Amino acid sequence: MRIAILAHDKFAPTDAKTAACLLRYRRDEVVAVVDRSKAGTDAGAVIPWATGVPVVASVKDAAALRPDALFIGIAPVGGALPADWRAELLDALRAGMDVVSGLHTFLNDDPALAEAARRVGRRIVDVRRPPVERRITTGEGALVDSLVVLTVGTDCSSGKMTATVELAREARRRGLDAAFVATGQTGIMVGCDEGAPVDAIVGDFMAGEVERMVLACAARGKSPIFVEGQGCITHPAYSGVTAALLHGAFPDLLVLCDEPARDTLRFPCARPFRTNPLPFEVRANEMLLEPTTGGKVAALALMTRGLSDAQAAQELRKAEAETGIPAADVYREGGVARILDGVLDMAAKRGLL
Amino acid sequence: MRIAILAHDKFAPTDAKTAACLLRYRRDEVVAVVDRSKAGTDAGAVIPWATGVPVVASVKDAAALRPDALFIGIAPVGGALPADWRAELLDALRAGMDVVSGLHTFLNDDPALAEAARRVGRRIVDVRRPPVERRITTGEGALVDSLVVLTVGTDCSSGKMTATVELAREARRRGLDAAFVATGQTGIMVGCDEGAPVDAIVGDFMAGEVERMVLACAARGKSPIFVEGQGCITHPAYSGVTAALLHGAFPDLLVLCDEPARDTLRFPCARPFRTNPLPFEVRANEMLLEPTTGGKVAALALMTRGLSDAQAAQELRKAEAETGIPAADVYREGGVARILDGVLDMAAKRGLL
Repeated sequence: MRIAILAHDKFAPTDAKTAACLLRYRRDEVVAVVDRSKAGTDAGAVIPWATGVPVVASVKDAAALRPDALFIGIAPVGGALPADWRAELLDALRAGMDVVSGLHTFLNDDPALAEAARRVGRRIVDVRRPPVERRITTGEGALVDSLVVLTVGTDCSSGKMTATVELAREARRRGLDAAFVATGQTGIMVGCDEGAPVDAIVGDFMAGEVERMVLACAARGKSPIFVEGQGCITHPAYSGVTAALLHGAFPDLLVLCDEPARDTLRFPCARPFRTNPLPFEVRANEMLLEPTTGGKVAALALMTRGLSDAQAAQELRKAEAETGIPAADVYREGGVARILDGVLDMAAKRGLL
Repeated sequence: MRIAILAHDKFAPTDAKTAACLLRYRRDEVVAVVDRSKAGTDAGAVIPWATGVPVVASVKDAAALRPDALFIGIAPVGGALPADWRAELLDALRAGMDVVSGLHTFLNDDPALAEAARRVGRRIVDVRRPPVERRITTGEGALVDSLVVLTVGTDCSSGKMTATVELAREARRRGLDAAFVATGQTGIMVGCDEGAPVDAIVGDFMAGEVERMVLACAARGKSPIFVEGQGCITHPAYSGVTAALLHGAFPDLLVLCDEPARDTLRFPCARPFRTNPLPFEVRANEMLLEPTTGGKVAALALMTRGLSDAQAAQELRKAEAETGIPAADVYREGGVARILDGVLDMAAKRGLL
């Protein structure tokens, strides 16, 4: 597939998380990033692993590179389409591209967009549309033989998706028949064994859908099954989704993701909320799991971007000293191997392998 | 209003929770319970406070009592309509009744039912249809001056709705301008200051909707604001909804509801899950609140039904000894007064009044 990514005024590693992840995991398919504020530059100037991908001013400019699909490269809070992006989507459809969106607002429900797609015979894919089947947790997830590992975080956007994808890839490199279960729109877009946009599912059915995906992977003999976490169990806006994953996935082990440099939670709010110390988040997650699987945090995945190697090493040692849990950065050489070692070590000690 | 309640084969205090609550709080409006398995009996034989309400075999039989509306008296797991109840709903509409439903399956989306309602000019009210407006938590709830009290539980169906309604009524009897915020279909049906079916809202927006309702009550000068809880923070199927309420309501204080006689969680599951000791649930709920409001459990609301007075008193003393928190049963004389005393005492000690 040839992909263009729409990220007007927002192309940056954190603001355009979807764009950054597509460039990380589907780099060979991406032909252009559309951002009028950075037109004429190379995407590598913003995201190191994107070198060679041109940034263009408009979808019309991107069309010259013949993309098959325009992916919306952002996942804003609340998930609505920026109003002035709509014309760009119409241009994409008219130029013969599919449109792939992870927004909460479903583009197929926009009559003008749906009609434009129909007229040119292209598709609008709303990745965040929840599954039609609604499922309540049955507890079967607690009986699964596969090793199930869930990522959790000290905040949203703390590296859970990347850690989960990298852990599954590293496990496969070691010959394990690992699965990646995506629970958010970006994970689904980068490719997964099972995927559902859990934060777009009605409250009562979130946990049941996650359980279903784990059961589906287990039935195919997959192990370990790495489940992408969402939000943070103490986050005022997102803890509901986090709790549903924590229980619905019935994880044997957790990997806790954190950005040491962050001191306030990342969401638009009337007053700042502080991030919690690692030991607090370890205890809170483990406490909620105690009655179901008794799962423990096996490793810490720290995002040390912006720090020197020496500073990063210091943060990792500090986190390990505070928690007694091995820590590494999946974005640094050898990081994901060390985290997987931590997971497999604890799995062996607890008789889970 | 004249109300008939449909509860075929399920009319019992726990199986037909919605029926039981309607009979408790809108007793004067209820003209019949429809349950073919108990036809010809008095509802008081099943639910003490329903004495004098006849149980009839069918909606056609109920029609003789001229109800204005048929309320669906159950809220089954998964929330679907039992297949053989559909004909009864058509009979109700044809007999000139509105139909009021708290099911997850929206009756207005059933073309035959919607058409039947249209033809006779009656309404189908789907109480569990989520609000159109979707709102992410902003943190404004943390800045509210009103005293906010949330009920939490050691399981689903542990008396949270009743405790919340009774607390608001008791507070009003004492001259306080209290509010009741309903978060489930039954609470909405019995009457509330603000209400939304939170478990029917998409995951990302549950907490924001609860926060909105608290803000709306606070803007009207209401205090205390009693928010109905849902599920249980350690429940494998429902913790997502519980966590969203725990954070979205920004409660200053909690009331923990429990049925001492229950030893396994009440939901259809592949293996039993044990209920947790009260001190564990106190700690789990308080831990998640620590980073937002630091809210604490101010009182325990125990359901001691089926126990003698002496046994009930013993359970209450045991709970108090285990937790150091005052305990009472809202279903017993003086119970709600004692729980409200506990709430107001702690509010005073913490400078919240």
